[in-house]
Amino acid sequence: MFTIGIDYGTNSVRALVVRSADGAEFGSCVVGYPSGDEGVLLDSHDHHLARQRPADYLFGLERSVAGALAEAAKRPGFSAANVIGLGVDTTGSSPLPVDAQNRPLALDDKWKDNLAAQCWLWKDHTGWREAARINELAAKHRPQYIAKCGGVYSSEWWWSKIWHCLDVAPAVFDAAFSWVEIADWIPSVLAGVGDPRKVKRGVCAAGHKALYSDEWGGLPDKEFLSLMHPKLAALRDRLYEKAHDATEAAGALCDEWAKRLGLPAGIPIAIGEFDVHYGAIGCGVREGTLVKVIGTSTCDICVVSAEKSIDDIPGICGIVKGAVLPGYYGVEAGQSAVGDIFKWWVEWVCKGDADLHAALSAEAAKQKPGQSGLVALDWNNGNRTILVDQLLSGLIVGQTLYTTRAEIYRALIEATAFGARAIIERIKEYGVPVDRVVCAGGIAEKNPLLMQIYADVTGCTMHVAASSQSCALGSAISAAVLAGAHPNFAAAEQAMTSLASTVYEPVAVHKVVYDQLYALYRQLHDSFGGLNRSIDLSRFMKDLIDIKYAVNG
Amino acid sequence: MFTIGIDYGTNSVRALVVRSADGAEFGSCVVGYPSGDEGVLLDSHDHHLARQRPADYLFGLERSVAGALAEAAKRPGFSAANVIGLGVDTTGSSPLPVDAQNRPLALDDKWKDNLAAQCWLWKDHTGWREAARINELAAKHRPQYIAKCGGVYSSEWWWSKIWHCLDVAPAVFDAAFSWVEIADWIPSVLAGVGDPRKVKRGVCAAGHKALYSDEWGGLPDKEFLSLMHPKLAALRDRLYEKAHDATEAAGALCDEWAKRLGLPAGIPIAIGEFDVHYGAIGCGVREGTLVKVIGTSTCDICVVSAEKSIDDIPGICGIVKGAVLPGYYGVEAGQSAVGDIFKWWVEWVCKGDADLHAALSAEAAKQKPGQSGLVALDWNNGNRTILVDQLLSGLIVGQTLYTTRAEIYRALIEATAFGARAIIERIKEYGVPVDRVVCAGGIAEKNPLLMQIYADVTGCTMHVAASSQSCALGSAISAAVLAGAHPNFAAAEQAMTSLASTVYEPVAVHKVVYDQLYALYRQLHDSFGGLNRSIDLSRFMKDLIDIKYAVNG
Repeated sequence: MFTIGIDYGTNSVRALVVRSADGAEFGSCVVGYPSGDEGVLLDSHDHHLARQRPADYLFGLERSVAGALAEAAKRPGFSAANVIGLGVDTTGSSPLPVDAQNRPLALDDKWKDNLAAQCWLWKDHTGWREAARINELAAKHRPQYIAKCGGVYSSEWWWSKIWHCLDVAPAVFDAAFSWVEIADWIPSVLAGVGDPRKVKRGVCAAGHKALYSDEWGGLPDKEFLSLMHPKLAALRDRLYEKAHDATEAAGALCDEWAKRLGLPAGIPIAIGEFDVHYGAIGCGVREGTLVKVIGTSTCDICVVSAEKSIDDIPGICGIVKGAVLPGYYGVEAGQSAVGDIFKWWVEWVCKGDADLHAALSAEAAKQKPGQSGLVALDWNNGNRTILVDQLLSGLIVGQTLYTTRAEIYRALIEATAFGARAIIERIKEYGVPVDRVVCAGGIAEKNPLLMQIYADVTGCTMHVAASSQSCALGSAISAAVLAGAHPNFAAAEQAMTSLASTVYEPVAVHKVVYDQLYALYRQLHDSFGGLNRSIDLSRFMKDLIDIKYAVNG
Repeated sequence: MFTIGIDYGTNSVRALVVRSADGAEFGSCVVGYPSGDEGVLLDSHDHHLARQRPADYLFGLERSVAGALAEAAKRPGFSAANVIGLGVDTTGSSPLPVDAQNRPLALDDKWKDNLAAQCWLWKDHTGWREAARINELAAKHRPQYIAKCGGVYSSEWWWSKIWHCLDVAPAVFDAAFSWVEIADWIPSVLAGVGDPRKVKRGVCAAGHKALYSDEWGGLPDKEFLSLMHPKLAALRDRLYEKAHDATEAAGALCDEWAKRLGLPAGIPIAIGEFDVHYGAIGCGVREGTLVKVIGTSTCDICVVSAEKSIDDIPGICGIVKGAVLPGYYGVEAGQSAVGDIFKWWVEWVCKGDADLHAALSAEAAKQKPGQSGLVALDWNNGNRTILVDQLLSGLIVGQTLYTTRAEIYRALIEATAFGARAIIERIKEYGVPVDRVVCAGGIAEKNPLLMQIYADVTGCTMHVAASSQSCALGSAISAAVLAGAHPNFAAAEQAMTSLASTVYEPVAVHKVVYDQLYALYRQLHDSFGGLNRSIDLSRFMKDLIDIKYAVNG
């Protein structure tokens, strides 16, 4: 028996055909989104804007599944008739305005070129003013709402985006009957749901992103939403009452899509989750494991048994019951840009390509920790955790007239490692156990320099997931559990996931230097991030030079 | 009648044949130094090190004068027999170890490849530890010494370098009979001086760089030098008692060099001054004029009548009577790297050439002030004025994932403009009048974008000197006054200098934005520079974004 995991990333969608018994990957296919800049619609006047065409999602869905099935069909023992379920994961929070038939406005000729009518991609930060207003209102009227998401509601999330649409594109807002996360919308398309009120919503996306919690009866109450805008209160009736964890199906494959995909009609479709949440399952997450999915950005996932009590953690953007595994709190953190920062440096500034990535990486690998005299902040796209502030920006300090591009490249890798350490320290401080780190994503697999630096900076042994498609694999695992191929997630993870043989151990002498550099990073982090408003920086550059001289002997 | 100005820069030497009557330039020739990286000997293990081969100076002297004379010879009315004087300016403080015959150690086979035996170029900062010790000792025992140089003795100067040589290369120190600034050494070569004790030393180089002042009887007393090292006290006897302003000749052209250069023997040689001091004369400096020579670094020069009293100015590295014009205090300030920072960015990081400089400049010219959301510090080579701290380093803040290399290029130009403004504000605050700014140097002539930004940031109208060779011209003017072609410097400047017709006026709407950015620059400047140890930086990145949004509308 087989299930298919479908993973919607920022630039492309991947379908993966997986054998339920052992997780063997029989076929996979990646399809890039045809529109915009690698699938992302940008606005040269506002770097906060990032949208996607929903038509690209449908195009990619059909092509990627067809490609994966075609590849699987070459392997003995595979038949499309033996596919018993589908799972979908996507980026998020990425809300999409739809009409009363659950059809995206952007598929209508009237709206097709309107940026506000497209899907508002996770990394769209145009709603930063609205996020600030939500934070003010919640602090005053509903502090419990934001306590649950680390103390700060983000411009990356559901209400900031929908409210911003109402502010800047009221005609689009008024034309939208409802809004749907693409994590919920793609499964609803496969299930043939023609009414947004009937779309099964996942608690993963609803959780803190839409301020949903069973504790206060679902979405924010109308009184609170009215303080934002009466039209948002009215919208609540056209959204949903209940969100679900992965024990619930999103629906069954409808005849139309069964035909288009060449799969059996009626097979179950797992509830949609965000990519890294299903990715954590694909990495074998369990209590005590931190899963890091390292790509353009990084997402960190832990789970803690729902039988325990867990405090709200300042700056940790989400603790949601059932967001990853049923029966566990999902603890979510992340860094708004990781691979994107290296890409910015290599492609945008140095005007290079993959070869230059490799060349700079090779040169950077020859440098000792502290040797460049540089330290950077990893905030080119804001700080998701632990500051939850999208209005922060990048910083590099310590340059001389002889600082090289490879030194800056390494300093940027180190900056993301320091950001990763700040997250680990914060969650451990609040009682989330971290005794194992499992990494996934292209960077974890292909960049041993980065992995070693992460080990040296955090002091943790870094493992890498065996599958290169852990998100799609996690979606396929969820479908397999739903379809009854395994009795529960623990058994399914045991059978269907494994670790790569390469392991990165911290080097003690590097850790000593990085402890000093991390202290300097924290001076920048805490002063520019607003945690400490009177840090003495007068020795900062001299401390960097002292470290440099000590390291260079 | 004609004089020749010879200008020793960081990468090359230029000779300029000038008609004394009107400053008309009859011939010029530039010769690059053949050794090292564009004439500079570097050490890949220590970015503070920068040395030069004295043989390069002699090679360049002969070639450049020959070339300039050859060019002049093509013009009617010129004859080498009508050359009535020579003037020399050089970088500095650039001390050179010599033997008892005034011959550089580096010309001896035994020492020729020893980096410590070469000329210690102005931008060599290896003596930063020694500079710190000089500051400690002077603060305790001779506060007047460093009050005269802005409160801080620099690693770029005479005693820091010579003491560092004693610390790290005692064999070289012991082999040296004496040390000579190249500003004094080149004229002494032309004059055939065979004993370093007989070299006529200029007060320009001696002034604060060697802590020379008539107020305390010349060089620092032996008691103080003994506190540094007994060998430095002993060296004092092999240096000099008296330093001179430009009313005094360095000597007369000796037979040997008259023959080598094809010039009349016995013509007077002006006292050596640093490039920008004679450059200020070539720009027509007078009380109320700030001369900025903008090149790899920037030097700022003002003069104030010696009949007035002038306070010591904190952070202003030198107020020396006679350092520029006889009868005036020379007030000297500067920025350790300006063109060098752009060169670093374009050539070292972006791996481009002059074409890329032009392309980035063209792209940066399209940006509005504040549009990039960036602000940078201009400290890649430390800060000469007003912090006098070579251990400071570069900083860039405000980067997003879409920040371009042209935006950073512009931010670096702006950073140097902010540094320039800090200097102007400081000297005005202490009563030095600035009612006219005259710029010289390749960047002033060739980079209208930079000049406009400087006007917008400082609020000053920026003029450009008509001569492209203001330093060499100033040297030639000094020679002309010495040879009697003009009664005094005021008359000579009046006759021999002029301004270019292009003038850069501040644009009011730009100034408003730059006032805000300068306030942010000063937050970085004052916190990392140690002037204020408790600046609240929590709004810094948000202020940058506010400015960016306001500018972009």
